Amino acid sequence: VARWWGVACGAVSELWAFARADPRKAVFAAKVGLALALITLLVFLREPHDIVSHSVWAILTVVVVFEFSIGATLSKGFNRGLGTLTAGALALAVAELSKNLGKLEEVILITSIIVVAFVTTLTKLHPKMKPYEYGFRVFLLTFCYVMVSGYNTGKFTDTATSRFILIAIGAAVSLGINIGIYPIWAGEDLHNLISKNFTGVAKSLEGCVDGYLKCMEYERIPSKILVYQASDDPLYSGYRAAVEASAQEETLLGFAVWEPPHGPYKTMNYPWRSFTKVGGALRHCSFAVMALHGCILSEIQAPPESRRVFAAEIQKVGQEGAKALRELGNRVKTMTKLSSIDILLEVHMAAEELQKKIDEKSYLLVNTERWDASKQAQGIKEVLNGTNTVEKGNRNRENKNDGTSAVEKESKDEGVETTIVDQTLLHQSKSFLGNSFLRRYDSTSTMDGFKLSWPAQRSFNPNVPLEDEDSKTYESASALSLATFASLLIEFVARLGNVVDAFKELSQEANFKDPVEEPTTV
Amino acid sequence: VARWWGVACGAVSELWAFARADPRKAVFAAKVGLALALITLLVFLREPHDIVSHSVWAILTVVVVFEFSIGATLSKGFNRGLGTLTAGALALAVAELSKNLGKLEEVILITSIIVVAFVTTLTKLHPKMKPYEYGFRVFLLTFCYVMVSGYNTGKFTDTATSRFILIAIGAAVSLGINIGIYPIWAGEDLHNLISKNFTGVAKSLEGCVDGYLKCMEYERIPSKILVYQASDDPLYSGYRAAVEASAQEETLLGFAVWEPPHGPYKTMNYPWRSFTKVGGALRHCSFAVMALHGCILSEIQAPPESRRVFAAEIQKVGQEGAKALRELGNRVKTMTKLSSIDILLEVHMAAEELQKKIDEKSYLLVNTERWDASKQAQGIKEVLNGTNTVEKGNRNRENKNDGTSAVEKESKDEGVETTIVDQTLLHQSKSFLGNSFLRRYDSTSTMDGFKLSWPAQRSFNPNVPLEDEDSKTYESASALSLATFASLLIEFVARLGNVVDAFKELSQEANFKDPVEEPTTV
Repeated sequence: VARWWGVACGAVSELWAFARADPRKAVFAAKVGLALALITLLVFLREPHDIVSHSVWAILTVVVVFEFSIGATLSKGFNRGLGTLTAGALALAVAELSKNLGKLEEVILITSIIVVAFVTTLTKLHPKMKPYEYGFRVFLLTFCYVMVSGYNTGKFTDTATSRFILIAIGAAVSLGINIGIYPIWAGEDLHNLISKNFTGVAKSLEGCVDGYLKCMEYERIPSKILVYQASDDPLYSGYRAAVEASAQEETLLGFAVWEPPHGPYKTMNYPWRSFTKVGGALRHCSFAVMALHGCILSEIQAPPESRRVFAAEIQKVGQEGAKALRELGNRVKTMTKLSSIDILLEVHMAAEELQKKIDEKSYLLVNTERWDASKQAQGIKEVLNGTNTVEKGNRNRENKNDGTSAVEKESKDEGVETTIVDQTLLHQSKSFLGNSFLRRYDSTSTMDGFKLSWPAQRSFNPNVPLEDEDSKTYESASALSLATFASLLIEFVARLGNVVDAFKELSQEANFKDPVEEPTTV
Repeated sequence: VARWWGVACGAVSELWAFARADPRKAVFAAKVGLALALITLLVFLREPHDIVSHSVWAILTVVVVFEFSIGATLSKGFNRGLGTLTAGALALAVAELSKNLGKLEEVILITSIIVVAFVTTLTKLHPKMKPYEYGFRVFLLTFCYVMVSGYNTGKFTDTATSRFILIAIGAAVSLGINIGIYPIWAGEDLHNLISKNFTGVAKSLEGCVDGYLKCMEYERIPSKILVYQASDDPLYSGYRAAVEASAQEETLLGFAVWEPPHGPYKTMNYPWRSFTKVGGALRHCSFAVMALHGCILSEIQAPPESRRVFAAEIQKVGQEGAKALRELGNRVKTMTKLSSIDILLEVHMAAEELQKKIDEKSYLLVNTERWDASKQAQGIKEVLNGTNTVEKGNRNRENKNDGTSAVEKESKDEGVETTIVDQTLLHQSKSFLGNSFLRRYDSTSTMDGFKLSWPAQRSFNPNVPLEDEDSKTYESASALSLATFASLLIEFVARLGNVVDAFKELSQEANFKDPVEEPTTV
């Protein structure tokens, strides 16, 4: 008994926490209780008897039609009403026809049920009829019910009428309570969902950029990410929510179009579809963020040195991109038009800076060793030893004083530089061994149960002469991966343009309010 | 009248075509008709009267429980059965308690309905309870119904019993007909869906690689793609289907776990979840294909010359990747284990070849002009004029015969080469102007109603001295975009590994049959 008591207490506290987290749900549950209580009062009337004896239909209607959002309630109510009316009319017509046919009546009853069931079910399955699926179900149900109970009692018209009155009462009570008391609008949910996703993608973007610059590495990549399942990785969950929201947006859109003007959504035929377009354009952006995350997950990793060279520019693009996303999300939320200042100005400038930097330092992005080894070494030297070179110049000038030791000292300086270059190359090799194409295929490493193997015997055997060349191949690949990251970041910035365009279209159609321009000094 | 007739004919022919396209749906509709006809026969019995007068419940059960797949029918039937039983028991207990309380009875009736409605609705909304949502709905419905009709008639037990018998009859008829005649299994649908998506992604991959190498360009990018809506673009629809299948796979999985062993799925607790894992790993791959498609959609495009240099290797990776995907899809379809030969051997080799080629020709991927103009020119010359250089050597040897004209001829040769290099640079500039960052932001171009603008007055004004530098920046970006395409292709190959791992896990757990090894000559 004590154990059951514990389980019950746990369930109650979980429900309490759930209701506290989203009070709308508790309010909705209370509304259902209220509606049912009102309908039950009907039963106490006991008069007129033929209506009250069918009171179960009013209860059935309330339970079935009372949905969370107003749009869903209206859409279901419409389907139910239309289905009931047409089915009732058809059933009465068939009954009227068969009434005077004697023995044939039963044959007609069975045949009509088979035919109606077949046609209704087949039509229901057609993709175009998906929004009316519930209506077809109700149609079939009502038709069979009226036919059968009419046959049993002989009173076709009475059954249909009293049932229809009770359904109308149930629907009226449902609608009255659901809209009258603390209404929950699907349109509002859609609006919030889309503005929330902006923040999620912005967070993921910042996380990806920071993680990439900090050379973040997954010790074990959660296999959930690799098979696209929900995971609690913060980088992942942000963009995944935006990607996955597709179905939810469609559902909410389907309900929102049923809702009358309300609250801030004042016009008739409110452009809900444009909201989902903004969501879609954001999704297109979040696929670019997903690709950036792919660079972190990838087994080919750029050496930290080269990342550091581009760090400032990449960071800037990431920050400005996230800022633009947040700003757009905020505009969607507050329903404000864009101000006259181009929202993408900063992020475009940052992207251009990054592009220029790539252009200037492009020797860091490819393995130039094969075609000119000294060139690359010089390039890396210049970057790493910018100050060292100046120093060397100074020292050379000093050395001019005695002619004999100059050459010796010069060669010593050369030695120092070679060491630095060697260290760089060493680190590259090390990071190649640690992070390369091989890592994920190392047969000893398992990732959350995923055993991975690379055909090691073929080309990565250290005894095979090819090895050196292969090693260089992946070293070069590791440098190119930085170029990929940067390109994808720039692609992300380009895709931001679509989001801004979709937002402008939306703000025009939905007649968003004008922004409060900051007072400018003349 | 004639117009209505035309509309009706159109609807009938559409339905006919729909039924022809998927005969399973017509069979299902016929099964529904048959089940309802059987239940209707009950009505003709007319005895015992108290059962027959409730016959509507059997009909209701058939209409509501009869779902397309066996898994959905079983899951709904279970929910309905459990909901009815527990609600009936609770209602009877409450009724028993309140029976002797006189006037308090009505208070208890109302209060219990409010409390039950509140708790049931709140619990139903909890995310963990999602699979049992229907059960809660039935529970609430039944509870209210038994309470109200019991209060009306005073016969609580009779109502509950006769209703339960009729629901049991309805459920039995539904299950018998649905499983007995041409059953439609959700598991089979899941299996087919996943193996079909392999083909779709393979097609998209081939299309992207071919399109990229043919320098395919969208005259107008359908804005539907940019806002992630369904479009009939063949490249797009292939991977989009795989990406979008996520929700469908989850739904089918939810039904498939209810299904008993059947057909080729012989074991109890068949590992349906592993099927969705394979689907998820494939989705992870298809995001890489999506990124490849992004390279084609991108406004920064590599010049055709450099694409041609890597064409053979890129083509090979695309072909082998698509081949591996098709092979895996086929293995999933035929439920065959992988043979001992590594399925990814070919594609890994192709990826390595591509990587080596990138390494060798990396000077084509970056704009080296700024740090050594002659180097790049020489590099491009070497590629384009590989034969020319040899020729030149030959001619030089000839020229050694007369000393005076040698220098003249040499400079003439130089002239020829410069022209070719100039042409290349010219084309790069042209393709830069045509395809660059600018194109999409050209304020005159609209893409399916999307007006795009770039802050042209700022940095792209030809009168501003910056222009030349900017132009070079995007020239370099255009070359890097090829590196991005290649990197993403290699990333795709790496992700193929996850699919193979997920497939191996599945083939182990689901006990796929061993492959028929081709007879090897000893």
